[in-house]
Amino acid sequence: MTIDTDNSHLADDATTPTVAGPAHPRATTTLRPLALSDVRLGDGFWLERQRANRDVSIPDGLRQLHDAGNLHNFEVAAGRADGDVIGPIFADSDVYKWLEAAAWEYAREPDSSLLDDQLRVTELVAAAQESDGYLNTVVPRREGERYGHPERNHEHYCAGHLIQAGVAQKRATGRDDLLNVAVKVADHLVREFGPRSATGSAGDVDGHPVIETALVELYRETGTRDYLDLAAWFVDARGHDSLERFGGNSTYLSDRVPVREATTLEGHAVRAVYLTTGATDVAIETGDDALLAALGAQYDHMSATKQYVTGGLGARWDGEAFGDEYELPSDRAYAETCAAIGAVQWAWRMLLATGEASYGDQIERLLFNGFLAGVSLRGGDYFYVNPLQVRHDAHADEERNPKNGRLRWFGCACCPPNIMRTLSSLGGYLATSTGDGVQLHQYASGTLRATTDAGDLELRVETAYPWNGRVRVTVVAAPEAPVTLSLRIPAWAAGATLDGAATQPGGYARITRSFAAGDALVLELPLAPRITRPHSRVDALRGTVAVERGPLVYAFEAQDQPGLVLDDVAVDAASLSEQAEASVAEARELALPGLVTVSLRTPCGDALTGIPYFAWANRTVDDMRVWLPEG
Amino acid sequence: MTIDTDNSHLADDATTPTVAGPAHPRATTTLRPLALSDVRLGDGFWLERQRANRDVSIPDGLRQLHDAGNLHNFEVAAGRADGDVIGPIFADSDVYKWLEAAAWEYAREPDSSLLDDQLRVTELVAAAQESDGYLNTVVPRREGERYGHPERNHEHYCAGHLIQAGVAQKRATGRDDLLNVAVKVADHLVREFGPRSATGSAGDVDGHPVIETALVELYRETGTRDYLDLAAWFVDARGHDSLERFGGNSTYLSDRVPVREATTLEGHAVRAVYLTTGATDVAIETGDDALLAALGAQYDHMSATKQYVTGGLGARWDGEAFGDEYELPSDRAYAETCAAIGAVQWAWRMLLATGEASYGDQIERLLFNGFLAGVSLRGGDYFYVNPLQVRHDAHADEERNPKNGRLRWFGCACCPPNIMRTLSSLGGYLATSTGDGVQLHQYASGTLRATTDAGDLELRVETAYPWNGRVRVTVVAAPEAPVTLSLRIPAWAAGATLDGAATQPGGYARITRSFAAGDALVLELPLAPRITRPHSRVDALRGTVAVERGPLVYAFEAQDQPGLVLDDVAVDAASLSEQAEASVAEARELALPGLVTVSLRTPCGDALTGIPYFAWANRTVDDMRVWLPEG
Repeated sequence: MTIDTDNSHLADDATTPTVAGPAHPRATTTLRPLALSDVRLGDGFWLERQRANRDVSIPDGLRQLHDAGNLHNFEVAAGRADGDVIGPIFADSDVYKWLEAAAWEYAREPDSSLLDDQLRVTELVAAAQESDGYLNTVVPRREGERYGHPERNHEHYCAGHLIQAGVAQKRATGRDDLLNVAVKVADHLVREFGPRSATGSAGDVDGHPVIETALVELYRETGTRDYLDLAAWFVDARGHDSLERFGGNSTYLSDRVPVREATTLEGHAVRAVYLTTGATDVAIETGDDALLAALGAQYDHMSATKQYVTGGLGARWDGEAFGDEYELPSDRAYAETCAAIGAVQWAWRMLLATGEASYGDQIERLLFNGFLAGVSLRGGDYFYVNPLQVRHDAHADEERNPKNGRLRWFGCACCPPNIMRTLSSLGGYLATSTGDGVQLHQYASGTLRATTDAGDLELRVETAYPWNGRVRVTVVAAPEAPVTLSLRIPAWAAGATLDGAATQPGGYARITRSFAAGDALVLELPLAPRITRPHSRVDALRGTVAVERGPLVYAFEAQDQPGLVLDDVAVDAASLSEQAEASVAEARELALPGLVTVSLRTPCGDALTGIPYFAWANRTVDDMRVWLPEG
Repeated sequence: MTIDTDNSHLADDATTPTVAGPAHPRATTTLRPLALSDVRLGDGFWLERQRANRDVSIPDGLRQLHDAGNLHNFEVAAGRADGDVIGPIFADSDVYKWLEAAAWEYAREPDSSLLDDQLRVTELVAAAQESDGYLNTVVPRREGERYGHPERNHEHYCAGHLIQAGVAQKRATGRDDLLNVAVKVADHLVREFGPRSATGSAGDVDGHPVIETALVELYRETGTRDYLDLAAWFVDARGHDSLERFGGNSTYLSDRVPVREATTLEGHAVRAVYLTTGATDVAIETGDDALLAALGAQYDHMSATKQYVTGGLGARWDGEAFGDEYELPSDRAYAETCAAIGAVQWAWRMLLATGEASYGDQIERLLFNGFLAGVSLRGGDYFYVNPLQVRHDAHADEERNPKNGRLRWFGCACCPPNIMRTLSSLGGYLATSTGDGVQLHQYASGTLRATTDAGDLELRVETAYPWNGRVRVTVVAAPEAPVTLSLRIPAWAAGATLDGAATQPGGYARITRSFAAGDALVLELPLAPRITRPHSRVDALRGTVAVERGPLVYAFEAQDQPGLVLDDVAVDAASLSEQAEASVAEARELALPGLVTVSLRTPCGDALTGIPYFAWANRTVDDMRVWLPEG
């Protein structure tokens, strides 16, 4: 299939219902998200990734959920199959994340088989729900009583992903099937936990956050205030070591320090960023500026001291955890794909709340690097762990070790459907609006429509980003009154110009005027490759350099450096250069039109070739380094 | 109490029975260990450590075993107490290691209360044994059937430590009480496992090695060949993924590659070195030169690519495991104290088998650094994990994190009694004999007696090592015929002299002649502090230097650098100097007579003071670094 890049569909689809994407606040925020249905990607980098997601990842994901037994568990719970439930305690959640992906993908481009598949799975999920709303296929059949082990049983976590999927299906298809299941689950939780509860488990929080953001989304969709209240209650109930009485580790479970008192992120990285994401949702909807300020400080501290150059989060295999400040080894980076996704969600909410461009920078860094490395270019092959170095003699003793190569699925399969739902809803992260105009945060070809106080503004974006830094924004339709167009200038984009005028990196270039159809602006983001040097406290990186080009971090794979031992190379940083598509075999090998590679020389004159980090391990699985010693 | 340093006791104690120490081979080895009763440490560095071990660690250890419930478990098993067994699955083994420590300590200096204590515990252990010889207090009462989960239940591991303790008690006290229990356990194992077995569990190996070396020791003590055969069988049964069917991870459990095919050590570090120790015992007693050669290559590979400068082993908290080659982070070094102890045991056996001085170097590096850092100078306070860096903002989320400081005991208390048994038997590692002479491997004041073909040779050693590099060896008694005195010259000891003659570092200085009482040799080991630079592949150490002085690695603690932020310092390697005791406050603070500190300057002229790594965290727990960036 092909997607046109003109704007004709906007007029044609005038009767199509508006589709809100993920995280559409009810409260007034500094920036407002656009409807998912008002953003349409055109041919280019991200549309290629969405096509792979639709054509390969999503259909293969449904097969994997069948083969791995996740769907079987629902059949057992629905009384339609015999046998034991199987797989990890949180197996249900992978089904829900797939349902959410399928929903957003349907919104992106409707297709009857995509709808049939999700409704069939939805019917099965609904059949597995108990009469009081509780829904978990594994816990009551294998682990004992409900909520008996919140530190490990993931019951709220599964409920949260179900709710997110129910909201997505409602927004994307207009159908209430899964939303009804989600509401029953949420009403059950309201009865069992938090301020309205009168049961013994009232005081417990779940070992794995996500219910917080899910309940806020359900509040947004339904208007039922109880859900927001319970989310807010869960946020503040956390951080008091309450899971220790079940044997849980407070640090690991984000239960050691209350969210509003924390100064950093610690413990299990995915848990931690899911919690701050939900807390940000709560802060937005309750107007809790103190909480929002605490979360902003935590984001700053995390990005300054505990984040890889790829955006990756989680330095430790041990506990899949954040390390200490500046503990960022390249070879043993965990940097779980799900943690990058959680950070995108958190940064997006912070961006809506504050309008600060740095969160747009974060989303760009995460999406192009730490997130996208988690899925193959063809779709359907995944990394759970995303290191910045693979040694020649590394030994893969665990399934998720990247030395094993990309895998079709995992025993713990949280990442694949998380990638799917992120790619299918990606359009929602590109732009926002305010009363007086539109803000472009991420650059990709396509069209978008936004509502301002003066009227609707329709734009067409044309760019070969991230290979080329020229972004042309053409006005398709505009109100007569002046509006403000804001374009994010990444912090790395020194020398950027908008219509030839110099702009400051690390903020927004703004133009306020009356626009007419056909008016165009040209943003030029200089994409010369650049040398990045590490913070002096990072042991693993001392004396090394990385290469970035625009939003892309580069990686050096052994297969591109014949005759050199990647473990032993050193480079001359001053030798950095780039090679555009026409001259590089890697572009064809990787099926990456427009690919730009970079080159560094050793002191002996040997040349090393770097490809974008997101594209590594798409040919053979090989030694790889992002940071190279200077020498 | 005081221990005299003259030789009068040798004559006085002529009727005292000879006490073999740990690892006395039956087979002929290149070097023969001395009897433990033929080595007596005099005032000096190691005797101080042994006194702390005797006066504080060992008595406190017995209290801890009581308070933590390890002894209670035996009372339950013996039918003398009610209640559940408690603590980790391997709780019994800590009792056995304490019994072994008490036995060797009794050999070092007899004392009726020390004997009473161990015999009281021995009686309790014996009462807990089942009629067929099986002895484990925890597994049958909490975990289900015997040997049902060899990957995690540690039944052979506990049996191995029991056997080692039984052998030690026999050798040290002459009593058979615990040996009889050990023999019953071993006979039970011979019936159940390996070549003589006819049961269903015949093919299983234990998740945690140690039974191999224990059975060989029991063979040495009793002469029963079945024990050696079973040990040899266990060694070769390993490495075939047999524990995977129980859900065990082959790499973690040293079960992925057969010992004689392995080229490196991998997985859980303590398991790995205990296995190679036992395999070396088997190779020695069976004359298996191929196995011995494989083990030697593994030791070389380990020390070249997977060992910290402190001798520490195990780069990962995740799985307490060896990392990949050159994966040696300072801050997240695990370097479990038990792994250093296992490596001492392995190196000692390799030294006996091969006579290669490098194993003596290894033992010295391990004992003075990675091992000794595991216990406080006063005794009784322990580190389980021994990092080479503690950051200012490090967060201790686990009990064993050194940021918590030294602890009196651990929920998993393998290390403390392991330290005790090593210190109480330390005399056994100092010297060996051959038909034609005596070899001194470690330097400490004291007296020793060795048997050569020409007759007995008695020596007195006087030294202030490791503070001072002068070692005076005086002949107390010697045969008339010529004998060879061999003194290890550490690989770091460039410029060493023996009686004024230059010697080659990294081997033995040998003098062959007739000696008479009163003859003396003087070895001079130059102890100027030196800069050590890391291998270029070690990311965490690139651009840094460490300081060593003689056998000691130095550490820089924040409390000794007022006004400087240790996380941010850089040093001028050319500024290295040392300060002897007379000028350093640290010597008094640490109660370390003779202490020599080192000094490095920053480019701005600030001075940093380093103390020996083994002495860190004996005042306050503070930031610490071994490797400092050059700048």
